[in-house]
Amino acid sequence: MDLLAIREAIRKLARLDYGRLYQADFLLTWDHSLDELRAVLQVADILKGFRQNGLSPRVFDSGLGVTLFRDHSTRTRFSYAKAANLLGLMVQDLDEGKSQIAHGETARETAAMISFMTESIGIRDDMYIGRGHAYMLEAAQALTAALRDGVLDQRPSLVNLQCDLDHPTQSMADLAHLIHYFGGLDHLKGKKLAMSWAYSPSYGKPLSVPQGVVGLMTRLGMDVVLAHPKGYEIMPEVEELARKNAGRSGGAFSVTHDMDEAFDNADVVYPKSWAPFAAMEQRTLLYDQGEADGIKALEKDLLARNADYNAWECTEKRMALTRDGRALYLHCLPADISNVSCVRGEVAASVFDRCRTPLYLQAGYKPYIIAAMIFLARMDRPADMLMELLDRRTPRLG
Amino acid sequence: MDLLAIREAIRKLARLDYGRLYQADFLLTWDHSLDELRAVLQVADILKGFRQNGLSPRVFDSGLGVTLFRDHSTRTRFSYAKAANLLGLMVQDLDEGKSQIAHGETARETAAMISFMTESIGIRDDMYIGRGHAYMLEAAQALTAALRDGVLDQRPSLVNLQCDLDHPTQSMADLAHLIHYFGGLDHLKGKKLAMSWAYSPSYGKPLSVPQGVVGLMTRLGMDVVLAHPKGYEIMPEVEELARKNAGRSGGAFSVTHDMDEAFDNADVVYPKSWAPFAAMEQRTLLYDQGEADGIKALEKDLLARNADYNAWECTEKRMALTRDGRALYLHCLPADISNVSCVRGEVAASVFDRCRTPLYLQAGYKPYIIAAMIFLARMDRPADMLMELLDRRTPRLG
Amino acid sequence: MDLLAIREAIRKLARLDYGRLYQADFLLTWDHSLDELRAVLQVADILKGFRQNGLSPRVFDSGLGVTLFRDHSTRTRFSYAKAANLLGLMVQDLDEGKSQIAHGETARETAAMISFMTESIGIRDDMYIGRGHAYMLEAAQALTAALRDGVLDQRPSLVNLQCDLDHPTQSMADLAHLIHYFGGLDHLKGKKLAMSWAYSPSYGKPLSVPQGVVGLMTRLGMDVVLAHPKGYEIMPEVEELARKNAGRSGGAFSVTHDMDEAFDNADVVYPKSWAPFAAMEQRTLLYDQGEADGIKALEKDLLARNADYNAWECTEKRMALTRDGRALYLHCLPADISNVSCVRGEVAASVFDRCRTPLYLQAGYKPYIIAAMIFLARMDRPADMLMELLDRRTPRLG
Repeated sequence: MDLLAIREAIRKLARLDYGRLYQADFLLTWDHSLDELRAVLQVADILKGFRQNGLSPRVFDSGLGVTLFRDHSTRTRFSYAKAANLLGLMVQDLDEGKSQIAHGETARETAAMISFMTESIGIRDDMYIGRGHAYMLEAAQALTAALRDGVLDQRPSLVNLQCDLDHPTQSMADLAHLIHYFGGLDHLKGKKLAMSWAYSPSYGKPLSVPQGVVGLMTRLGMDVVLAHPKGYEIMPEVEELARKNAGRSGGAFSVTHDMDEAFDNADVVYPKSWAPFAAMEQRTLLYDQGEADGIKALEKDLLARNADYNAWECTEKRMALTRDGRALYLHCLPADISNVSCVRGEVAASVFDRCRTPLYLQAGYKPYIIAAMIFLARMDRPADMLMELLDRRTPRLG
Repeated sequence: MDLLAIREAIRKLARLDYGRLYQADFLLTWDHSLDELRAVLQVADILKGFRQNGLSPRVFDSGLGVTLFRDHSTRTRFSYAKAANLLGLMVQDLDEGKSQIAHGETARETAAMISFMTESIGIRDDMYIGRGHAYMLEAAQALTAALRDGVLDQRPSLVNLQCDLDHPTQSMADLAHLIHYFGGLDHLKGKKLAMSWAYSPSYGKPLSVPQGVVGLMTRLGMDVVLAHPKGYEIMPEVEELARKNAGRSGGAFSVTHDMDEAFDNADVVYPKSWAPFAAMEQRTLLYDQGEADGIKALEKDLLARNADYNAWECTEKRMALTRDGRALYLHCLPADISNVSCVRGEVAASVFDRCRTPLYLQAGYKPYIIAAMIFLARMDRPADMLMELLDRRTPRLG
Repeated sequence: MDLLAIREAIRKLARLDYGRLYQADFLLTWDHSLDELRAVLQVADILKGFRQNGLSPRVFDSGLGVTLFRDHSTRTRFSYAKAANLLGLMVQDLDEGKSQIAHGETARETAAMISFMTESIGIRDDMYIGRGHAYMLEAAQALTAALRDGVLDQRPSLVNLQCDLDHPTQSMADLAHLIHYFGGLDHLKGKKLAMSWAYSPSYGKPLSVPQGVVGLMTRLGMDVVLAHPKGYEIMPEVEELARKNAGRSGGAFSVTHDMDEAFDNADVVYPKSWAPFAAMEQRTLLYDQGEADGIKALEKDLLARNADYNAWECTEKRMALTRDGRALYLHCLPADISNVSCVRGEVAASVFDRCRTPLYLQAGYKPYIIAAMIFLARMDRPADMLMELLDRRTPRLG
């Protein structure tokens, strides 16, 4: 992307209707219009263009980007740090012990305390069904109240770095990858995407990745097939949403319990383990009740149940079923690779090995997606600001 | 505060006598003259003014702000990070296990090692009576020696982020809040402030908050009443200091064992739990001797003793005793709120709820107070520099 | 160093042949030519000169410096943070549990994931013989592959912050200290340096400090004597390298088992504990096999063996044997000081006390050495860039 292309991309951005992103939170892709999502993708591309041309899109002279991780993370933590740094924010982590999942008064107070001089707050809270998104809403309300009451001079914007419902920075990075791979958003129409459960020798992986993918890709006219063994359902409201999306976008959404059927003629495959929704709900309940024995029993049961489906692997044979035998393989990483990271996992080593480079490219979009979300939430006139930054030609180095 | 008001505030600052703050440490408010304290408050206001007008007061192109927390902290840690970032410093935390409280040679070496290229060091060491302030003095001497010996090109300045004697960033933020609430430092004269012990179902809370408050507010002509059950005395030297301060400032200082008496006609109430001084001294001794059993027994005893005084709660009934029933309620947060964070605590839920907004405003002054302390310790001619920054009009964003 | 001297130093830098440092990793001093090492020392001096004159050598507008510490560190962690900050990079730590020493696929993936928008990666991996350097090579190859495959827009450069073979940021800081102490690199020729084992009541200290010192100082025409009790050999390949170096440089390298002999007429002494190479190899094997009992037994055995040699202490009597009784005492810190940090240790308290100031000066070079390594790896035309920075005269403060 040369400087002329960046200029053209900014002009294209200016024609979109995305003003509602200003001073808003980014919690779920389905909270946002297609134009708003397009704006995020467009700004991500522009920021990447700046960097590729050695120019700096730094807009903040000072200010904080706060992260609040209620689950372990390396990739997303680093992606957020890079996004914040690219724009000029210093990252400050808030360490909350998992055990101290404090809501109510404390959530309100914490939100206010970390928000003086803070531009952006990235939250990951994906462990408990019915809790993560609820916590983010609670924090959002606390911030709005603090601004209204004059406690804050400005209200930082939230970015959902994974909750129980959605993982928007992941699904948007996935989408950026698809757009670049297929040559444009319009080229996704009619393409078949298989979002498939895959076996892993672990339990309790969040549902937000498959939910995020089916909740987003069905809006782009894609033919989305969700495949999983019986009992591994995702949340019914997200399935319902995907179905409606497909109806509106001219795409399709279907569910199958046959991995081969999902892979058949697929343009894109996303084989990935997740936990059954109902079991995760039960687990949350057991945690609430402090039932340590119950949790252990449930986890043992989940592992045993998983093992029944260890044939759900993305093998060379299955890849051969896809469009011309060459579907694009997606994963949010890290993947459980058979004979590499485990005896039997989500994907055969030879498939993973062949697909490594595009996979890493996929991951590389995330920092820019996050930076775009922060940029659009904080800048009054994003397109004008980007044009100014371009004209300024500040080198990133030197 | 508009730009004209900022300019006027800088002119007012220039008339104060505060040169001794330059290249000095800020350890105890009572180490400093009233003019020096006024300068900190003034610079805090000016920095806040910059930010409210979207201007950057960033003075450092690079440099480190180091934190050394020997006790858990979220609020103060974030306040320090914000202050450092506002001025352009990167924060680097020094993680010292609590168990490795290393003094002597090690303190000397650590001080030198973390100080190359460092502008400011913020230390919290509030756990052990007789140790925190001593440690800071030790660090200060090590830095002075390292500068004298040519080891350091410059000597970073220390900021006390809470020790066993004082919590100056807290008490100065409290004071900033009082000044803004009552319309000026001069309006504090004669106002009655009740610094009262309050019940909490925990033990061992530092004494530095009440000590910091009575040690500072008595200098401003306030009528300070310290209230606590018998046996919950603060350090005698701080009581003595408060008494002398009051004598000089035309204020008053008294001690009562009756919470109602303290609240009677008070303009400001500060109900807050703390540990008895004598018990904390004993605890330090037991830690020194590694007497794990003795510590457990002492803690059990302290909790039981606390329970005898669970009527020491800031209730609606008590608030009604205050001036027009509407005293300003202060707390350093987090508060133990009855029926919210515990069954019975320092304050009734309805009182806290009503006072939340001013409380959060109180907390919001701390980052600016810390930034002012750093600014005044590092800038050769602070008023001139602020005027230059104002004329420069660097936007914080854009 | 005034501005004229800085200008002259930059001109001197321009005459060296060090282009191979550009976009390269700094893993072992013996990977690099003498001119390349001279360039690092020269840039370190120039950067220090900038700072002493209140000028900023910041070249990055944004970008990350990532640290990956697989062993505890305070000094080196801070040195890296200061170096990164001086140049304008934000530090992001990658926390990898020691237990999760993950190689293979994971090393490859981790390297790519942390490298988007990253300029420099500092790695410490010194715990296991045969592993640390191997891990760094693995990471280096992964980065090269990621760049080649288009995953990365740029490849960050690695800095070895201590591995099993070498500790180049330490030995180069030591060398900078020697150069300043003796008045120039040329003055080191013929000077006798005693790299001696010393007793410590701990086991398992890395071999990379003595190895780094003998591997580097023998290249400068020094007369390097390695002294240790029998059984405390360093890695044979490094001894071999030191011998060859000495042959080429006109210096000398010898091994003795007599501490007094090493100290006799020495200009520089470096008494420091380390673990026997063979025992460390065995320990790595036991870790591989998960032999917890074997590890415990080995450690007990090592401590007992150490105790046999507790006369290997840097005493006043031994210091009296050195050139005019006034050899320069070096240590990488922290030292085990007899009667201070332990009953009996590496050095007598009176010796350490007398030598403290030069020791701290020695430590003060490390941040600049690291900054020079990063600078030379990332800047296309380092000398031109430094001259531009000098002409720009950006104040670090103001």
